[in-house]
Amino acid sequence: MKQMVRTKTKIGILGSTGYTGVVLVKLLLNHPNIEIIYLASEQHADKKFSDIYPTFYGVLEDKCKKTDAKKIANECDVVFMATPHGFSKDYIPKLLSENSKLKIVDLSADFRLETTFKKKIKVTYGLPELYRSQIKKSQFIANPGCYPTSAILALAPALKSGLIKLNSIIIDSKSGTSGAGKQAKPETHFCEVNESFSPYALAGKHRHLPEIENELSKLAGKNINATFSPHLLPINRGILSTIYADLKVKINQKEIHALYKAFYKNEYFVKVLPENMYANTKNVRYTNFCHLTPLKDEKTNRLILVSSIDNMVKGASGQAIQNMNLMLGFNEKMGLDTVGQIP
Amino acid sequence: MKQMVRTKTKIGILGSTGYTGVVLVKLLLNHPNIEIIYLASEQHADKKFSDIYPTFYGVLEDKCKKTDAKKIANECDVVFMATPHGFSKDYIPKLLSENSKLKIVDLSADFRLETTFKKKIKVTYGLPELYRSQIKKSQFIANPGCYPTSAILALAPALKSGLIKLNSIIIDSKSGTSGAGKQAKPETHFCEVNESFSPYALAGKHRHLPEIENELSKLAGKNINATFSPHLLPINRGILSTIYADLKVKINQKEIHALYKAFYKNEYFVKVLPENMYANTKNVRYTNFCHLTPLKDEKTNRLILVSSIDNMVKGASGQAIQNMNLMLGFNEKMGLDTVGQIP
Amino acid sequence: MKQMVRTKTKIGILGSTGYTGVVLVKLLLNHPNIEIIYLASEQHADKKFSDIYPTFYGVLEDKCKKTDAKKIANECDVVFMATPHGFSKDYIPKLLSENSKLKIVDLSADFRLETTFKKKIKVTYGLPELYRSQIKKSQFIANPGCYPTSAILALAPALKSGLIKLNSIIIDSKSGTSGAGKQAKPETHFCEVNESFSPYALAGKHRHLPEIENELSKLAGKNINATFSPHLLPINRGILSTIYADLKVKINQKEIHALYKAFYKNEYFVKVLPENMYANTKNVRYTNFCHLTPLKDEKTNRLILVSSIDNMVKGASGQAIQNMNLMLGFNEKMGLDTVGQIP
Amino acid sequence: MKQMVRTKTKIGILGSTGYTGVVLVKLLLNHPNIEIIYLASEQHADKKFSDIYPTFYGVLEDKCKKTDAKKIANECDVVFMATPHGFSKDYIPKLLSENSKLKIVDLSADFRLETTFKKKIKVTYGLPELYRSQIKKSQFIANPGCYPTSAILALAPALKSGLIKLNSIIIDSKSGTSGAGKQAKPETHFCEVNESFSPYALAGKHRHLPEIENELSKLAGKNINATFSPHLLPINRGILSTIYADLKVKINQKEIHALYKAFYKNEYFVKVLPENMYANTKNVRYTNFCHLTPLKDEKTNRLILVSSIDNMVKGASGQAIQNMNLMLGFNEKMGLDTVGQIP
Repeated sequence: MKQMVRTKTKIGILGSTGYTGVVLVKLLLNHPNIEIIYLASEQHADKKFSDIYPTFYGVLEDKCKKTDAKKIANECDVVFMATPHGFSKDYIPKLLSENSKLKIVDLSADFRLETTFKKKIKVTYGLPELYRSQIKKSQFIANPGCYPTSAILALAPALKSGLIKLNSIIIDSKSGTSGAGKQAKPETHFCEVNESFSPYALAGKHRHLPEIENELSKLAGKNINATFSPHLLPINRGILSTIYADLKVKINQKEIHALYKAFYKNEYFVKVLPENMYANTKNVRYTNFCHLTPLKDEKTNRLILVSSIDNMVKGASGQAIQNMNLMLGFNEKMGLDTVGQIP
Repeated sequence: MKQMVRTKTKIGILGSTGYTGVVLVKLLLNHPNIEIIYLASEQHADKKFSDIYPTFYGVLEDKCKKTDAKKIANECDVVFMATPHGFSKDYIPKLLSENSKLKIVDLSADFRLETTFKKKIKVTYGLPELYRSQIKKSQFIANPGCYPTSAILALAPALKSGLIKLNSIIIDSKSGTSGAGKQAKPETHFCEVNESFSPYALAGKHRHLPEIENELSKLAGKNINATFSPHLLPINRGILSTIYADLKVKINQKEIHALYKAFYKNEYFVKVLPENMYANTKNVRYTNFCHLTPLKDEKTNRLILVSSIDNMVKGASGQAIQNMNLMLGFNEKMGLDTVGQIP
Repeated sequence: MKQMVRTKTKIGILGSTGYTGVVLVKLLLNHPNIEIIYLASEQHADKKFSDIYPTFYGVLEDKCKKTDAKKIANECDVVFMATPHGFSKDYIPKLLSENSKLKIVDLSADFRLETTFKKKIKVTYGLPELYRSQIKKSQFIANPGCYPTSAILALAPALKSGLIKLNSIIIDSKSGTSGAGKQAKPETHFCEVNESFSPYALAGKHRHLPEIENELSKLAGKNINATFSPHLLPINRGILSTIYADLKVKINQKEIHALYKAFYKNEYFVKVLPENMYANTKNVRYTNFCHLTPLKDEKTNRLILVSSIDNMVKGASGQAIQNMNLMLGFNEKMGLDTVGQIP
Repeated sequence: MKQMVRTKTKIGILGSTGYTGVVLVKLLLNHPNIEIIYLASEQHADKKFSDIYPTFYGVLEDKCKKTDAKKIANECDVVFMATPHGFSKDYIPKLLSENSKLKIVDLSADFRLETTFKKKIKVTYGLPELYRSQIKKSQFIANPGCYPTSAILALAPALKSGLIKLNSIIIDSKSGTSGAGKQAKPETHFCEVNESFSPYALAGKHRHLPEIENELSKLAGKNINATFSPHLLPINRGILSTIYADLKVKINQKEIHALYKAFYKNEYFVKVLPENMYANTKNVRYTNFCHLTPLKDEKTNRLILVSSIDNMVKGASGQAIQNMNLMLGFNEKMGLDTVGQIP
């Protein structure tokens, strides 16, 4: 099925045994134009990947390797950094000093607020629906966070069109537990998460807020402070953000919906749903889609936006592949064109 | 087991095999001053209650009876209406025509916006923390809805103290699935709810919104329109509301916390949590507590309130018993004094 | 991606909006050699499929049609019956009277105990790992049940090799709730299934038992009665069967494992796991794999088999496609070659 | 609220912040005859118990203390060991050397296979339904494991009556995740357990098997080896064991049911369910009940037993309190008399 004449692009994944890593591996196995040649894992070096994740048993029998900057940088064409926050800051310089042409998609937060690396290499914020042309020309992508992706895609049309008061934005987000990573922690113990629902890092404390505010400010052309409230859902996958902002122009429900439809009319991965459907997490699970529901709350003259993504796909690894496809000149949907799993 | 000399109050429960009904039965079995003498159920008349709910097997061996207004009104001292919305409207008049002294706690929404019944009997909105003295003198209680309870208890201190702008209130609520009732419906199928999270009835469409606005307006002394967004959680029990409002006075985090502590300092069932704890659904599950977290979002000068209750207890049957205790002059905590189930 | 020169096979799906129907649709959308031309649904005729399942919004915009035997039989090359048990019995004759060459994969239980249809058309039990050559020549496939698939694949090597006492077989099976279908019923209400685990239809009462016994008897060449205990799991997808039988030959753990590996060595979709891994439901979720763990319980001289499948894929729709691939001479894996979704 | 004249028994709990510890605390708070005076916790000494478990906020404001053998032994009348397996072995001698009269209920496995401590103090296996008279006279109780409790209560009538072949016993058990304890481990990460079902420690590898075999052998008067298969359920609470054994006497379904009813007719906490009900985990959740369903599989002449308990209550802390009640001459149900939480 994958016999093409062209040479396949060689891919390395650092942090391949973490949750964003394993989702990258799964998706890239179905990508016709690439081959994964380097599965790096500090914790599991020399173990078979399928020993860590037995769902790959008999499908992917490669071993994990040590995170060796020299080898990775010289053997790979593209590297995905699926490593913990803080790791990229020091490690990407090592990779680039070995191979100054190496293409990088960094899934961590380390460079998301930067615009250049060492004043030489441009760092592009990898949200294709907003920055596609820059991404196509980029070598170094800072892949957006999951919460920011859900919030920015929802607010972009309103901000670009000047619909809302900039100081009135409230983002109430709910995330599945995979967002907390694979590491066992007291707060991700099954018995703690199951049958519960909890807020955390409220009132300006979440590390994704500066990223959100930075991007919203770019869209508005003015400095924005927003209220951001993350909550933990007892599900594995998915983020749903319910977003509120006061309208500052006269506009009705039909016009809001039409404006959103028009804004994303050429975007495959952002679906503004029909007016009789609400976005939810199940319908985008395992896909690279963002579902959007824009509503007017008539009596309060407020815009309500509901945005849902799979935090591991459009919120992380799927978007990273979408970015890679753009950087390499591939069809943007490659390896990503699926529908969710129902039931 | 707990035989007291005093005659026990005779209790009837209509709709006893629905979800609010079964929670009433469970809680009332531990109440020392009452006896359940009439378990009414249209659907399951003549079946043993423990055939419907086998957790009662060997504990409660009573049969369900037909919903016979004459018998109920004449045999019971207090009646709980745990019937579907719409039923009470016509049925309570029948009960009262049989026995004009009958005490009634109506868990349905039918009379929550009323103040009198047929201009003769006062209808009291049964939120004890706000209307205790009226409840004590009442014969007829309209028991608050689950969403309204969580929202009103959270907002009462802010409204009574004039902290917030009245047109800025946003209530983002998340409810466990028991709130949808026992009836099998496509949207409560396990496979639809499990591993999903969905909003519904947004932008002014939920039937609880008029109740919320009515009560908030009473507290503020002015007409309030609020934004209310309910969401469905893949858990059985619990509501968490995250509430936003713009501050209109200069006040810091410590002062807000102190104001909330002071407001509820004599209330056993409303706990303003210490500043290092966030309200969540698990910690109030199966209890009659409301946990509150009041926060200031410094950069946006906004008040954030987190309120959690068990939708079936403080949001329905527990609060109904609290109201009954007040009406009958019992200790308010009777039958209710428990902690949650961990893990 | 799907531009091939060859004419695509035309597919009809009856019962397309049920759970096995929607899984067929999802999988077949990725199949390069076919096109779905008829989505039949009695309940939802004339509605868009994506209105019923919004995860397909913007991906599949076809409408459902009435279940019209004449049109279906004459327009389609292959028909999948994903209809409720009992429907095929009367409907397949109608289809075949319209088009005697129509290829049929019946996912219902109606013909699983038959060997011929009206003494003319052979009915093949569609378990490819055991009946591949017959399936290739068949026009009419009775697709196995989910429980039977998990049990038969596990027991086949032991029965074919004469390892076990035939009267000692016990099959303790646990199934996800999607096995109960899409119809809302009291026993599939979220609040009933969630946080519970329940047996049902014990001691010979489950309709799948005759199918299991029939197939095991064919494998053993002797009549077999087995104990079969189904249980309901609070998960959407997956069956795990733990199977017990007394060994009647002297054989050790290593030999049992080697025998199982050898039996399935050419089968892509049945994986006998390494000795340090246990089959579980998560690792086969959304895939067409069956994972098997054969063990010897030394002290009791008993064979323990653990078998896991996705009840909707290898237990229904995936296996149906595997059968279609064989009937049509396609690569057996087409449309099925994936790994599970982790986390 | 329940002030009695008698002096309350002074209770210490070691390991009070683990899962069996917190369930002991919750239940004992409702026990009228005791007071908890020592909450020992190595990990959380000097923290308030309600800081660890905020569901106790405003209800129990005691601090945890260091595990000080001298103080505990001298201040307490009864001590519950809710500590990890291995701790009691060395620590109970320290307690008894400080106070040779101290009453002990050890919830760990350390002494469950012993009959005496240092040849002086009798160790009683604390299964009240089988050993009530001994427990009443005991100072030192080894509290049964959760899996053993579910298996032994189910098999006792059959073994005592000589119904079954001793070498044919198979115990297929499924446990909620709280059984794995509070410690965060990779295998109890929410995303690993949720939406999965997994066997573990099959074929004689689980540490509870010797305890089960020891007790079954005592009941049968002969040495028994059994097959025991534990599985992990994606629920917090509950064990369901489905148990199989070949009948060796002629007996029909009605007689089996009657025999089981008779065996437990005086036992409040073991309910043999009516023939139209199956035991499941939900109906015993949070209660000290064991529900039993005895069935005959006619065609295979096999006994099928279904047994369900709450692993944290009848499987641990509830049974420990039942034992304490017996040791102290209290009503056996004290602090335990409840029904489950529905929905």
